[in-house]
Amino acid sequence: MTLLLSISAIGQEKEALEHNSILFDDATIAQVDEAMDWPLFRQSLEDAREFVDEQMALGIDVPIPKDLAGGYTHERHKLNYLSMQQAGKVFVLTGEEKYAQFVKDMLMTYAELYPSLDRHPSRKSYSPGKFFWQCLNDANWLVYTSQAYDCIYDWLSEGERTLLERELLRPQADFLSVETPQFFNRIHNHSTWANAGVGMLGLVMGDTLLVHRALYGLEEDGLDADMKDNDGGKIKSEERAGFLAQLDLLFSPDGFYAEGPYYQRYAIYPFVVFAASLQNARPELEIFKYREGILGKAVYALVNLSDADGEFFPINDAQKGMSYYSRELVSAIDIAYHFGGQNPELLSIAQKQNTVLLDASGMHVAADIANGKSKPFVHKSMELRDGADGKTGGVGILRMDGKASSLSAVLKYTAQGMGHGHFDKLSLSLYEEGREILQDYGVARFVNIEQKDGGGYLKENQTFAKQTVAHNALIVNKESHFKGNTDTGNKYHSDPYFFDASQEEIKIVSAKDQHAYPGVEQHRTIALISDGLFEKPLMVDILSVSTATQNHYDLPYYYFGQLLSTSWDYDIENNLTPMGDGHGYEHIWAEAKGKTEEGNAAMTWMDHDQFYTITSVSQKGDQMTLARTGANDPDFNLRRDPLLMISRDAATTTFVSILEPHGEYSRVSELSKGAFSEVKEVQIVHDSEAYIAIEWKHETGQVYRLAIAKQSNDQTTSHEIKVENQLWDWKGPYSYIKK
Amino acid sequence: MTLLLSISAIGQEKEALEHNSILFDDATIAQVDEAMDWPLFRQSLEDAREFVDEQMALGIDVPIPKDLAGGYTHERHKLNYLSMQQAGKVFVLTGEEKYAQFVKDMLMTYAELYPSLDRHPSRKSYSPGKFFWQCLNDANWLVYTSQAYDCIYDWLSEGERTLLERELLRPQADFLSVETPQFFNRIHNHSTWANAGVGMLGLVMGDTLLVHRALYGLEEDGLDADMKDNDGGKIKSEERAGFLAQLDLLFSPDGFYAEGPYYQRYAIYPFVVFAASLQNARPELEIFKYREGILGKAVYALVNLSDADGEFFPINDAQKGMSYYSRELVSAIDIAYHFGGQNPELLSIAQKQNTVLLDASGMHVAADIANGKSKPFVHKSMELRDGADGKTGGVGILRMDGKASSLSAVLKYTAQGMGHGHFDKLSLSLYEEGREILQDYGVARFVNIEQKDGGGYLKENQTFAKQTVAHNALIVNKESHFKGNTDTGNKYHSDPYFFDASQEEIKIVSAKDQHAYPGVEQHRTIALISDGLFEKPLMVDILSVSTATQNHYDLPYYYFGQLLSTSWDYDIENNLTPMGDGHGYEHIWAEAKGKTEEGNAAMTWMDHDQFYTITSVSQKGDQMTLARTGANDPDFNLRRDPLLMISRDAATTTFVSILEPHGEYSRVSELSKGAFSEVKEVQIVHDSEAYIAIEWKHETGQVYRLAIAKQSNDQTTSHEIKVENQLWDWKGPYSYIKK
Ligand SMILES: [Ca+2]
Ligand SMILES: [Ca+2]
Ligand SMILES: [Ca+2]
Ligand SMILES: [Mg+2]
Ligand SMILES: [Mg+2]
Ligand SMILES: [Mg+2]
Ligand SMILES: [Mg+2]
Repeated sequence: MTLLLSISAIGQEKEALEHNSILFDDATIAQVDEAMDWPLFRQSLEDAREFVDEQMALGIDVPIPKDLAGGYTHERHKLNYLSMQQAGKVFVLTGEEKYAQFVKDMLMTYAELYPSLDRHPSRKSYSPGKFFWQCLNDANWLVYTSQAYDCIYDWLSEGERTLLERELLRPQADFLSVETPQFFNRIHNHSTWANAGVGMLGLVMGDTLLVHRALYGLEEDGLDADMKDNDGGKIKSEERAGFLAQLDLLFSPDGFYAEGPYYQRYAIYPFVVFAASLQNARPELEIFKYREGILGKAVYALVNLSDADGEFFPINDAQKGMSYYSRELVSAIDIAYHFGGQNPELLSIAQKQNTVLLDASGMHVAADIANGKSKPFVHKSMELRDGADGKTGGVGILRMDGKASSLSAVLKYTAQGMGHGHFDKLSLSLYEEGREILQDYGVARFVNIEQKDGGGYLKENQTFAKQTVAHNALIVNKESHFKGNTDTGNKYHSDPYFFDASQEEIKIVSAKDQHAYPGVEQHRTIALISDGLFEKPLMVDILSVSTATQNHYDLPYYYFGQLLSTSWDYDIENNLTPMGDGHGYEHIWAEAKGKTEEGNAAMTWMDHDQFYTITSVSQKGDQMTLARTGANDPDFNLRRDPLLMISRDAATTTFVSILEPHGEYSRVSELSKGAFSEVKEVQIVHDSEAYIAIEWKHETGQVYRLAIAKQSNDQTTSHEIKVENQLWDWKGPYSYIKK
Repeated sequence: MTLLLSISAIGQEKEALEHNSILFDDATIAQVDEAMDWPLFRQSLEDAREFVDEQMALGIDVPIPKDLAGGYTHERHKLNYLSMQQAGKVFVLTGEEKYAQFVKDMLMTYAELYPSLDRHPSRKSYSPGKFFWQCLNDANWLVYTSQAYDCIYDWLSEGERTLLERELLRPQADFLSVETPQFFNRIHNHSTWANAGVGMLGLVMGDTLLVHRALYGLEEDGLDADMKDNDGGKIKSEERAGFLAQLDLLFSPDGFYAEGPYYQRYAIYPFVVFAASLQNARPELEIFKYREGILGKAVYALVNLSDADGEFFPINDAQKGMSYYSRELVSAIDIAYHFGGQNPELLSIAQKQNTVLLDASGMHVAADIANGKSKPFVHKSMELRDGADGKTGGVGILRMDGKASSLSAVLKYTAQGMGHGHFDKLSLSLYEEGREILQDYGVARFVNIEQKDGGGYLKENQTFAKQTVAHNALIVNKESHFKGNTDTGNKYHSDPYFFDASQEEIKIVSAKDQHAYPGVEQHRTIALISDGLFEKPLMVDILSVSTATQNHYDLPYYYFGQLLSTSWDYDIENNLTPMGDGHGYEHIWAEAKGKTEEGNAAMTWMDHDQFYTITSVSQKGDQMTLARTGANDPDFNLRRDPLLMISRDAATTTFVSILEPHGEYSRVSELSKGAFSEVKEVQIVHDSEAYIAIEWKHETGQVYRLAIAKQSNDQTTSHEIKVENQLWDWKGPYSYIKK
């Protein structure tokens, strides 16, 4: 209320922009007074003003760079660029000159210091910055500072502009590009920050050469083909460089980013912010149409790689809990909405984020929310191809609504994902609403938790979390995929087989892998099935293994919660010992071991007051191990999470399981409903080189069948098999029928 | 909307009541049309009508009793009384005669069957019912049916009433009382149902003899002094019987119920519903003033025995998650509000419950909520004495608000609590807001979860959950209190020493026990301390042990979440073995063992993205065991929960720990704030027979001291000790100072 009055009290005319702004357009500026009626915009502006007022009260400090991340000079320079950016925006939106003055004073202080600065005294990075220990942070500085400069550009005198550009801004842009080609001319998300910073400054100053450099890279970089960064990554992997090359090479045609959503969330920011700057200042470039709208696809891919809570699927090195509530996604959602076709479903995400950007895109979002245009975001079933050419595997996401809840399944058949990739070919994860039912363990790391090795990657990330046995994936002979060698893994990828989310009763994805274990072909099909007899959708998991050799197979299912019952007998371990001595097995305690008879093996558990049963087709002698993570964990770096491991000694064989979420429990009424599974008699009714067909029943006797053509995924090919002497024929790679 | 229209469409005059109703009064009836404007009342009526309409559509079925709980006839008779009760109320509130007709038809069908019924064919109970296998359920039937009968009493003809009373109602009241004295004349919460049913019917019919029987019991019961119930409980423990005796004997003067809040929640219903009936029909009895307002005290005690979410502290055999959202608490809150002084804080609980009773009390609550009278419920610090005379120990509840969060601590020094009691003398539990920080394990039982032994008490409840080692309590020589013998436990209780919640900076409770281990006196003091230098309150735990003999002491702290660091070195166990072979130790895996030097031993962990550090005064050679529950658990009945166990071999000694909740972590910004404890240098600065005094520092150097007079809890006695050659003098049992 106070703020509204103070803003209205200014009553100052917002002047039309004199330069091509990277943040605003004239139409937006004309709406600023009206924007105070849009609650989300007004609140975001109040928050920004509060932050800037606090920073202004502290006075300007531009210390001589000295510290690493966490140290004073590092954190101060970071706060400086954040407060300049916010102050600039508050100035444009309120017209209060003290904010412009603050930005100018800060920039002038930087301009005074800058000529005396060499590279940062710490030489820990392959490309040390000026203000920070690494150029990545200096590039961040330039991205934010360019926005601040944009906001006060017209307000400054020409002489002031000339001084700042000559002493500070242009030198910093050159420093990050021509003076540090190993950082600027790389195809890497860090380098995108440099491209963006240089390009955004070029746009503000109207310097087409800088913009060209940002878009296309340095023509001559003189970089050695063998040069590596601190993590051992190659500097020069591609001939091309610059922002457009990043857009071409870092995303798959579907907008998938090879390292997965956790890193994509981090990488997306410089992409969307530079693209928005280009679109504002140079709309004729139509950057959002580039590569058939790759930027919008990247945002949608990212948002769809999340559970019902908006939390990203924790594939590869991903800390759980990161979500579309992150700062980067606020930018991505606002910009994708404003420049990408105003999909009203994005507005509901912006509402949950509860903040908008203080620029044209954020104003647009806030206005349309205030005008009631928001619609609930619906997570989509989709297949995302991996690789710049879309030809190195992918990931299949299935979503199925049931009467009582919704399931999401993720089948991963991507390439390795480089250094942050896990050995998780054809691994599965399953969610009910926002809850993990079958989890991917995620990363063994506590980001920025000092006590846990300074917040860095923990030893157990390598020895456990990356290993195949940490996933709901098949392990052959107790070794991880590619024997746990990332370089080998980087050479291969799994292959999509088919994906169909077009049917109402079944959503299905199927993929193959023939490289994780030489001589072993794996073929996994995951289906979510909705049927009137079941309150919630079922998940069907068919994993066929083809090989000429006899092997030991382990198939873990990482569940959560309290075990209620198993259909097989087991012996509990009176003392716990680790399940093995390598490939992650050394981190798993066996708690109970049993063997199955031929038929079905079923296990029921309870988590968050919901019931789950997995019913597997069992052979006589399948080993069922109830186990838990946490062995050989001297620093208590691992969680203690339960798993069921199904093991079998065989050559060619098939694992079939149906997971049924069912019923619910109330701790207040203490009533349990539907505590027992309704899936009965799961069977393999046909298993040959060409086909696998299974059948299951609802307890009422209703029969369901699902067949997969293993050797042809052609949509038009006809197939037929005999089941119980009846002909079953269909067209395309699978058939689902009720009898 | 539909409902409102249909109700308004009736437009029928609500007639004044012709008999003394147990549910309504004339003033309430006159307000019914207006009540449709009170959202909570209208919604509650809609829900009831929907339920009754469904039941009416099924037609009337009064089967011959045959089944046990869960079987058809049992569940049908239960639904019958529930639907009669609701239909009766809907009739009174809407005037629609079809609901009265339904109640009448049902009662007539019962009246036809009743004369032919013997006791229920199952003879599993010491007091089999008519409609159900045990009289308890038959008494439920009568409580609900009396309400239904009350609602249609005036609508029935005198002939109909005569028939129903002669053939069904009076015989059932006699059956539950004179024909089953072992059930009716007992001091037990089950018997309260019989007292209530008989009394409520008496009130409806205006039969003062039945009401007298309900209030005072049967004069002649002829019960054998040695008679026992199915669980081995004595039938005849007191000379008195009836409702007033239950009020006198089942609650302590503070309203505490010996079995704890989980059972109190169950027991409270017949008390409040019969009391409300008495107050409506016989206001001159002033039942809510009985025993200085014991009923109101019982409701407040119960509500205050819950965490910030309203979940009851799980002391004794209590399933976690039971809360003031339960059906019984809806009645208790509405009735306590209407008849107990209209405390506006109760309205906020009713709002959370989101439903009200369809009677005078519920209308009052809904009206006052609609009129904006609700205030947030504030959980209070309080000491609740145990025992009918208030002289068998008690429980101390401390609440402390800090800048960033609130803590609640519970110190239990009650009597054993009979068969459902745990061996948990001086055990501690701690909550931050609604989250358990130091847990009481609760019961080892999954109520009504068929797979877990039919939902009954599990073997591990006896072997683990009841044992001392399952609690944050001192274990001497690896044996539970009273060697785990309930009969011995029932003979003794701990003793309150002092309780002070009157100060702003400190809330403190202190209690002693000298019976759990013969020859060992324990004295535990728990304080919550709020100080400007700390964002959140601290918990101080001082446990002095006095004994002439050398003993082994184990003091577990059951925390939750991820261990981050310990200040002591430990060796992890490469294979896990149980910590012992009895008294619950056989259910705990030792994960890592270490020893301390003299000084402080600190451990930091993280749970729900909050940080916690416990800093203990350590002696050289104290054994620190990081452990986890779940050993020797063949049916996976136990959770896998972590604990720190501090062990020491000594005679007289003192354990001192400070638990500091600090900082927070965001999984979205990945920033951690305040991840390190600010508590430094915890010391015992004086330890003698008469006094214990400790000191700790904030990292800024600020010194805090707390002294306890161990041998006098007198408020006026003066004390002095010397610390660092300075005199420290005070009056009363403790002194807290900042230096
Ligand atoms: Ca989630
Ligand atoms: Ca709670
Ligand atoms: Ca502090
Ligand atoms: Mg993984
Ligand atoms: Mg969630
Ligand atoms: Mg307990
Ligand atoms: Mg809670």
